[in-house]
Formats: sequence, C-alpha cells, structure tokens
Amino acid sequence: MFRAQIKVNLKTGVLDPQGEAIKDSLHSMNFNEVNDVKVGKLITLSLEDNDREQLEKRVEQMCERLLTNPVIENYQYELVEVMSK
Amino acid sequence: MFRAQIKVNLKTGVLDPQGEAIKDSLHSMNFNEVNDVKVGKLITLSLEDNDREQLEKRVEQMCERLLTNPVIENYQYELVEVMSK
Repeated sequence: MFRAQIKVNLKTGVLDPQGEAIKDSLHSMNFNEVNDVKVGKLITLSLEDNDREQLEKRVEQMCERLLTNPVIENYQYELVEVMSK
Repeated sequence: MFRAQIKVNLKTGVLDPQGEAIKDSLHSMNFNEVNDVKVGKLITLSLEDNDREQLEKRVEQMCERLLTNPVIENYQYELVEVMSK
C-alpha cells in the first residue's frame, strides 16, 4: 500500500481572507509575533499497491483534475510505501 | 524570522465527509486505486525572531487556543528558521 500526502497552497499574491482572519484573531489574543498566516489543504490518500512511477503520474492527474485549482493553487506531494495492516 | 508549518488532521474515527466526497469523485473519474481520503488543514505562520523554545510554546498555545479543535483534531508542527528577505 502507498500513502500520498498532498500539500495544497494558494499561489503567492492570491488573497487569503482565511489567513487574514486568523492573523487578526491571533493578534487580538496577543500573539503579536505572528507576521503572516497562510491556510492551505492537506490531503492524504491511501492507494492500492502499484508501480511507484505509475502512481506518481496518477496522483498528479488527481491533483490537476480534481484536488487543486491550478489557477490559484499550487501543490507538492510525498508518496511513501506503507506496510498494510 | 521563523516559519511554523502546522498540519491539522481529524482524529482517527472522526467522520470525514469532505474526504468521503472526494473519494467518491475520484472513483467516478476512474481513480479506483484510491482506498481512502483524509482532508486536513495546513497552516503556515511567519513569526518574528524569538527564542526557539519560547516560540515552540507560543505555537502550541496558538494551536490549542485557536487553530485546532482539540476534541476532534490533532496537530503536528515544524518550526524552521528562515533568512529574512
């Protein structure tokens, strides 16, 4: 079995209202050392055994066709083999 | 300057409707190698320079008081020093 952990973030320059709201809340709680907050998605997929290279292509297809919005988001992923339980 | 990257995930056993919906969509797109999908949050904080140990405590306080819901979520974080631009 494989596990893909996909980090999806807004591209630089794209407004992040959620991040802004969290920053304001943190400041109102006196966490003034916080300069900036970015909020993204963390998607973890459990995948059937397959050829690693094949799985990497498939994960990239999933990201580009469903899991991310290529216009405003970019993504990174890690693919690790895990022992089946 | 420091950067904290916080990974927030639902605790095991907590229903993940978003993950279920994504899994169904992936299956309808013939990505049948996907067994399970978990969706979490990725929060990246830019933090003023400070003593590392002190910052770790502060990040944990931010997580427990605002950034996560300790009843249904758990979190991990990495704190790295970054060169100021």
